[in-house]
Amino acid sequence: MEFIGVKGTAVYQPAEMVKTDYLLKTEQISKKTFNKIGVSSVRVANHSESPTDLAIKAAKSLINESTVSLDQINIVIYVGATPPDYLIWSPSAKVCYELGLKKAIGFEVMLGCGGVPMSLKIAKDLLLNTKDWKHALIVSGENWEPYTTNRTAAGLIFGDTGAAILLEKGTNVKNKLGEFAGVTDGRFYDFAFLSSGTKFADMERQKQTAIRENEYSFFNTDSANLLRENNIKNYLYITNELLEKSKLSLSDISYLLLPSGRKDLMEKLIDVLEFDRSRTNFPFLESQGDLGAPGFICDLNNLFNIYQPRRGEKILTLSAGVGISWLGSILEV
Amino acid sequence: MEFIGVKGTAVYQPAEMVKTDYLLKTEQISKKTFNKIGVSSVRVANHSESPTDLAIKAAKSLINESTVSLDQINIVIYVGATPPDYLIWSPSAKVCYELGLKKAIGFEVMLGCGGVPMSLKIAKDLLLNTKDWKHALIVSGENWEPYTTNRTAAGLIFGDTGAAILLEKGTNVKNKLGEFAGVTDGRFYDFAFLSSGTKFADMERQKQTAIRENEYSFFNTDSANLLRENNIKNYLYITNELLEKSKLSLSDISYLLLPSGRKDLMEKLIDVLEFDRSRTNFPFLESQGDLGAPGFICDLNNLFNIYQPRRGEKILTLSAGVGISWLGSILEV
Repeated sequence: MEFIGVKGTAVYQPAEMVKTDYLLKTEQISKKTFNKIGVSSVRVANHSESPTDLAIKAAKSLINESTVSLDQINIVIYVGATPPDYLIWSPSAKVCYELGLKKAIGFEVMLGCGGVPMSLKIAKDLLLNTKDWKHALIVSGENWEPYTTNRTAAGLIFGDTGAAILLEKGTNVKNKLGEFAGVTDGRFYDFAFLSSGTKFADMERQKQTAIRENEYSFFNTDSANLLRENNIKNYLYITNELLEKSKLSLSDISYLLLPSGRKDLMEKLIDVLEFDRSRTNFPFLESQGDLGAPGFICDLNNLFNIYQPRRGEKILTLSAGVGISWLGSILEV
Repeated sequence: MEFIGVKGTAVYQPAEMVKTDYLLKTEQISKKTFNKIGVSSVRVANHSESPTDLAIKAAKSLINESTVSLDQINIVIYVGATPPDYLIWSPSAKVCYELGLKKAIGFEVMLGCGGVPMSLKIAKDLLLNTKDWKHALIVSGENWEPYTTNRTAAGLIFGDTGAAILLEKGTNVKNKLGEFAGVTDGRFYDFAFLSSGTKFADMERQKQTAIRENEYSFFNTDSANLLRENNIKNYLYITNELLEKSKLSLSDISYLLLPSGRKDLMEKLIDVLEFDRSRTNFPFLESQGDLGAPGFICDLNNLFNIYQPRRGEKILTLSAGVGISWLGSILEV
């Protein structure tokens, strides 16, 4: 029987590191909120580094380290929460070009910050169902500078990164992709979006004078209460569905990859799931910030490198994407 | 054995029809090019109708006519060549909300005008590989007004539409999705894109003074020669790969769904494939124009309604998306 596994992950982290406490001096964030977010520094890309530049740097190092030949990569998926370099344009085509891939089909999958776990499920099923396809490359990059004010927007502090993940098909792969669960609650569809970039965004921004140009912003603040009521509940729903489908219990799970961005949400989830904090991605948040879509790959990369999980151990991942969609997956190391 | 089939298609066509010969009066297009494009009228959406408004109108009529209950729809894929209503936002979440879907996961797939055939392949493999999932809804909409000048850009004349397609899993489905083939030639990655909307597009536009703001534009015109050399060749490569994978010859194909947008390209493909023009989507182009991503569904919808294909007959589809990617698929009615 064939399975799909993670052959490798790579991250490109910009060299420039910025301390976030200046947000207290500028009074953009209150001390109370700042502590709840729990991000003390973020990495910041060069202004001229586009999202695909970041993604391609990670993908190149992944491909160079790997034994997979370029002609054996059949799928390229580009994922981003922020817009790519241009619109009406294919970032995955640039990835194919820069990596020298000639036998792949490239396309984009978007689901805000939850795009990577969705793409892993998509790539898994495409590979399993297509005889000739053997490898898939998922790449992601975000440069948040144009869409935030001093790196903050919508109650989050953002860092820049590029990341890539390579999947392979085989009978004895490591880091096997297991069950997937996901649900979209469309009641949050107008909760938050970028305040510029389209004619319809311009129209909405002009109705709400407090909203800045070209910033990821809350538009329907009434949704905040609804989110408070449903957020943890939906993560638990996804967790239970995943465990049930996988015929596992929480005690079978060795590592938990949580939605990363805010310390308070991560702590809440660790508490309700009664999990050991040192076996989660919680410790990575402080010097990372919300990375958007590539964050999932960065956390997985850190988890592999720092925790050195053993073959057979199980990782449960929980994520969310704008919309809002709640997603989860199981990986067997 | 289970298969995935097209249960239904629906199109929302705006009422307003615009004759395109004014483009000759404004001298935006020469008579020679105008005749090569072969589009005499297009439908034009209301300025306030967003891409998702158009897509949702089509999806609502499809769902209302169908016997599938809302809770049996497990996947929603939104596809667009143009940006959706807002950026850093999920159009599929709005679709879920407006249709009242509560058990679906919604996400976006982009591949320019080739996004729909890619999404059909993705939805097919997701449904086949996920026990509990039975139906997928793919929706698409474009309002080209903000990204064109008098409906024209990059040698094409654009029309507006919304479209939806419903897939089902079963042992005896009609319009069965067969083999898929696709390849991205990344050498065209910088050929064309929207001249505004991101900081990187603004930078590129400022280098080329002939390019208008907020218009889908050719940026690397050197690629035009390379495309001329490769376009037909790549469509033939895809056609041969599809036929080989399906163990079919061209004489087994009853209908041909060609990339729609320009009369000259469609004629060329009909000639090299020696196909009967009246069994293709060629006749639909003249009063339709380039519809972007929803065009594939509109052509399929017309093919079903006008040609009334019989059970067992085979449709070969060829498409392309920005990047450029060439794609093809087989449907068995």
